[in-house]
Amino acid sequence: MATADRTRTFMKDVKRVIIKLDVSSSQLLVTDSDFENPNFRERLCETVESLLDLKVVPIFNENDAISTRKAPYEDSSGIFWDNDSLAGLLAIELKADLLVLLSDVDGLYSGPPSEPGSKIIHTYIKDKHYSGITFGDKSRVGRGGMTAKVKAAFVASNSGTPVVITSGFASQSIVRVLQGEKIGTLFHKDASLWEPSKDVSAREMAVAARECSRRLQNLSSDERKKILLDIADALEQNEDLIRTENEADVSAAQDAGYQKSLVDRLTLKPEKIASLAKSIRTLANMEDPINQILKRTEVAEDLVLEKTSCPLGVLLIVFESRPDALVQIASLAVRSGNGLLLKGGKEAMRSNTVLHKVITGAIPDNVGQKLIGLVTSRDEIADLLKLDDVIDLVIPRGSNKLVSQIKASTKIPVLGHADGICHVYIDKSADMNMAKRIVMDAKTDYPAACNAMETLLVHKDLIKAPGLDDILLSLKTEGVAIYGGPVAHEVLCIPKADSFHHEYSSMACTIEFVDDVQSAINHIHRYGSAHTDCIITTDDKVAETFLRQVDSAAVFHNASTRFSDGARFGLGAEVGISTGRIHARGPVGVEGLLTTRWIMRGSGQVVNGDKNVAYTHKNLPLQ
Amino acid sequence: MATADRTRTFMKDVKRVIIKLDVSSSQLLVTDSDFENPNFRERLCETVESLLDLKVVPIFNENDAISTRKAPYEDSSGIFWDNDSLAGLLAIELKADLLVLLSDVDGLYSGPPSEPGSKIIHTYIKDKHYSGITFGDKSRVGRGGMTAKVKAAFVASNSGTPVVITSGFASQSIVRVLQGEKIGTLFHKDASLWEPSKDVSAREMAVAARECSRRLQNLSSDERKKILLDIADALEQNEDLIRTENEADVSAAQDAGYQKSLVDRLTLKPEKIASLAKSIRTLANMEDPINQILKRTEVAEDLVLEKTSCPLGVLLIVFESRPDALVQIASLAVRSGNGLLLKGGKEAMRSNTVLHKVITGAIPDNVGQKLIGLVTSRDEIADLLKLDDVIDLVIPRGSNKLVSQIKASTKIPVLGHADGICHVYIDKSADMNMAKRIVMDAKTDYPAACNAMETLLVHKDLIKAPGLDDILLSLKTEGVAIYGGPVAHEVLCIPKADSFHHEYSSMACTIEFVDDVQSAINHIHRYGSAHTDCIITTDDKVAETFLRQVDSAAVFHNASTRFSDGARFGLGAEVGISTGRIHARGPVGVEGLLTTRWIMRGSGQVVNGDKNVAYTHKNLPLQ
Repeated sequence: MATADRTRTFMKDVKRVIIKLDVSSSQLLVTDSDFENPNFRERLCETVESLLDLKVVPIFNENDAISTRKAPYEDSSGIFWDNDSLAGLLAIELKADLLVLLSDVDGLYSGPPSEPGSKIIHTYIKDKHYSGITFGDKSRVGRGGMTAKVKAAFVASNSGTPVVITSGFASQSIVRVLQGEKIGTLFHKDASLWEPSKDVSAREMAVAARECSRRLQNLSSDERKKILLDIADALEQNEDLIRTENEADVSAAQDAGYQKSLVDRLTLKPEKIASLAKSIRTLANMEDPINQILKRTEVAEDLVLEKTSCPLGVLLIVFESRPDALVQIASLAVRSGNGLLLKGGKEAMRSNTVLHKVITGAIPDNVGQKLIGLVTSRDEIADLLKLDDVIDLVIPRGSNKLVSQIKASTKIPVLGHADGICHVYIDKSADMNMAKRIVMDAKTDYPAACNAMETLLVHKDLIKAPGLDDILLSLKTEGVAIYGGPVAHEVLCIPKADSFHHEYSSMACTIEFVDDVQSAINHIHRYGSAHTDCIITTDDKVAETFLRQVDSAAVFHNASTRFSDGARFGLGAEVGISTGRIHARGPVGVEGLLTTRWIMRGSGQVVNGDKNVAYTHKNLPLQ
Repeated sequence: MATADRTRTFMKDVKRVIIKLDVSSSQLLVTDSDFENPNFRERLCETVESLLDLKVVPIFNENDAISTRKAPYEDSSGIFWDNDSLAGLLAIELKADLLVLLSDVDGLYSGPPSEPGSKIIHTYIKDKHYSGITFGDKSRVGRGGMTAKVKAAFVASNSGTPVVITSGFASQSIVRVLQGEKIGTLFHKDASLWEPSKDVSAREMAVAARECSRRLQNLSSDERKKILLDIADALEQNEDLIRTENEADVSAAQDAGYQKSLVDRLTLKPEKIASLAKSIRTLANMEDPINQILKRTEVAEDLVLEKTSCPLGVLLIVFESRPDALVQIASLAVRSGNGLLLKGGKEAMRSNTVLHKVITGAIPDNVGQKLIGLVTSRDEIADLLKLDDVIDLVIPRGSNKLVSQIKASTKIPVLGHADGICHVYIDKSADMNMAKRIVMDAKTDYPAACNAMETLLVHKDLIKAPGLDDILLSLKTEGVAIYGGPVAHEVLCIPKADSFHHEYSSMACTIEFVDDVQSAINHIHRYGSAHTDCIITTDDKVAETFLRQVDSAAVFHNASTRFSDGARFGLGAEVGISTGRIHARGPVGVEGLLTTRWIMRGSGQVVNGDKNVAYTHKNLPLQ
């Protein structure tokens, strides 16, 4: 009898383990019919409790030798019909705290392991996102054996015993489950009642966002515009609610003793909702950035190639404090046809939640509210940054530290800048009044901005120029602390700067003298962060040398570094400022959220070794 | 006496360690003047050897108590003047196999640790790339204490004892040095004789390539053009030499039993040099891709912003077998002003070396031959892929496996594609003769190409269409093995495909029936690789649905997938085909090697809270 053989083998395995662990065990053999007797059930509990009190591990199995049923059992008959259903049944009878079902795979997957995108399901929610999964022959799930386990897990979890299906091959899997590690698949009767966003993993949110974004792309330009206008209206209509939630965040932050600058950034000022709504309406009325034809080529007769703009796909925005960033970026995503995952700071949780709800409430069902996901689960940023197969771009909005950490820890492309070490170089031919005006603006207009001047380079011929004294005096008068490089420190008798590669982000700067424009360029290449650098000179030849050679995202002649900004550049909504060299550089508008597709329309052309194709490669007008 | 205090503290430390390790030790106190006596030197060796035979560790120190010299000693006087010089002296006297000098830093750095880009120097080569390093007050090296160690290391290593300077704080550093681990800085008298390319690290090559590329950018367009023409000439002039080296590689590969396809790719055919030279001359004559003005905006009166094209920076090309790829990519790099690191396969070492030499020989000194570095050191690809701070883009040219591995293991952006799972969908309204022509071309023109068809999707209404039978028969006649998805496998009685996500790259394909164009689109999104997908239909509405919704790099209507290629698209030289969504997508020409810079020319404008700036944001003609 095959079943008896299997059972003997299994019991031998168990015995080996029990001996190895040096614990006592007791075999309890039961049959289906035993469970029909209520007294048996009562006694069973008492027996197991007594054994556990004695530190004896009870091991259940079907009493094959006396079982009257014939294999294969049908799951429509009997009370249990295999070890999995027996386990489920016992869990209920014994009111177990947890049932762990060991499988030969890591848990329940969203599809067959061979299929791309199949992922383990950490929390099974029957009525929600996994309702499409079927088991058995028509299963999207890899192994038939999983069916029995999932059914047992349904039964036990619905009766109140949580179940984890995990791998029996993985090291220490039972211990790891008991320690609360997120391995295997958890079944819990309340799982469907849990806050949905806490159950849906970030990966699932990203996949859903991509599906919604594809539907969004497929709308007409006017339909996308209408969504934006609806979002603007919804924000205004819900202003009181938004304000209440934001005030709750603000007072919690104040109570928690957060520093004032953070509380300031957290606060939605009275006019903020109106101004956000206004900027969304402006965005709604801008030219549709997607499905634009960027290039048209006649490849051969009747064979026309177009390069068109299209959304990047799914964006992840990690932002701190500022809830208005959520609104700006969400409306940019809608305008550009992208899906979006938002990960905000805890301190803005209530503001973010209500803003997210109001915004997604305005997204029609033919797109899907999952277009924009707010990650409120315990998924940490580090986990999100691993999703390089489902997220196309990360945009960090926050401190330099946040940006640096994100850049250092993900393979997803990052649009942003960690450092903004901007230089102003005053050439010997500079108009010193202009130099003073620009230096003062670059340093003091908004010292915490990334485009503020951090280092002032001065041509050595100006060491004794009265104009320079005037600039230094003005800086000091405004309260700017000045540190010197090796030369300036000596010449000007000022404190020495620790490093040229330093961003003060405050009312302080470094000054150093250089031999000429070439030395200034070399200094900038060596110590700068390739953000924004400026030359002040009346000598156009020197200016062109600087403009041509300085390898930074933005290079200015006779204008303040503070102009380095998407709005001031006239790019409309600013996505961020990138010091990366790939994809988008410097202040980035909505085009940073786009990629391209090549569309070709032919009439049956084939390549056939290029023997019969008469390539014309003629540029065509963009229509 | 401070020196005596320090010595006592030191000896206490040593004693503690010696006791802890349970070894015997013997203190040997020496003075400078001892070494002036040749007999002392002889006896010293004998003493140390005897001690070591007895397993006693000799510990040397200066005999401060009887020393007649006064601190601070000058290194111009005496034979030793500190513990480092004593160590160097003893190493020579005792003919030590190795001297390990322990420091409080990890070794000798290329610059102060606070400076960005400062890296540990693993092998010190005095006469070559580190000749610029100075020590002491004017040091580019962080710690003055390093000076004494480096001097001692010079002395000992020049006399034949290799020296490693490493950290005394790092765990097990002495053991790790003895095990040959690459920690600290090695000084060896023959270091400068070692094959230079084995000494220059890939990082240093990347930094040098960037410097050269900045000079290259700064040339006029005609000067860059001339370099390309010189390279073309040099290749033709050195054809015999190149051929000889290539033949050596080819016969070595044949002897080693490499498979024929690899040997074929390795072989430079007789006409190849001429055709490479020709394509370089074409490239030389194309419009200069850099310093192009892409956009001009009047930001305010007299404040003009330009977006200009510029080189990405430094490219890393990893290629297998084909030495012609080296020539193509090197000429593209020169045309686009980029620096380049080349990492070729071992099997093409001699071909690559001679081609690299010929090409860099044509690069003028005002740019520098280090513009193009051939990585022939033992630096493995994995090490190169860590250099994300000095390399801007990786372009893999080789097998899918190579590309996948590279994509999986680097944070540097990768331009390429791992998979090319291209679909052709035959709609119910298709002209079946056209469908046959396109399907045959897409599958059989070059089955190993990434743009060859892997999956044929057919509208379900065509299941019994004679046109479909005709296509299947033609495929079979040409020798194409056909596998079916779940439906086609049943309906057509053909073997079942293991997975829809499979690239055969050979005379084989998968076929499946779908309900309609939307099912085809969903199938492509689910199983495809977003490379190139095609619809065959006479229904323009259906075609537009497909062209609009399929989210792949290239989407075709009634044309073979084989057209998805830089040359056929009319892009000129092809850099690669990208399935990434960032930066460049689909077939990529030279524009994939470019980024942008923002250039602004003003007349003293400042932001000053945007109070006085009258923004115009007017588009200007590109001149």
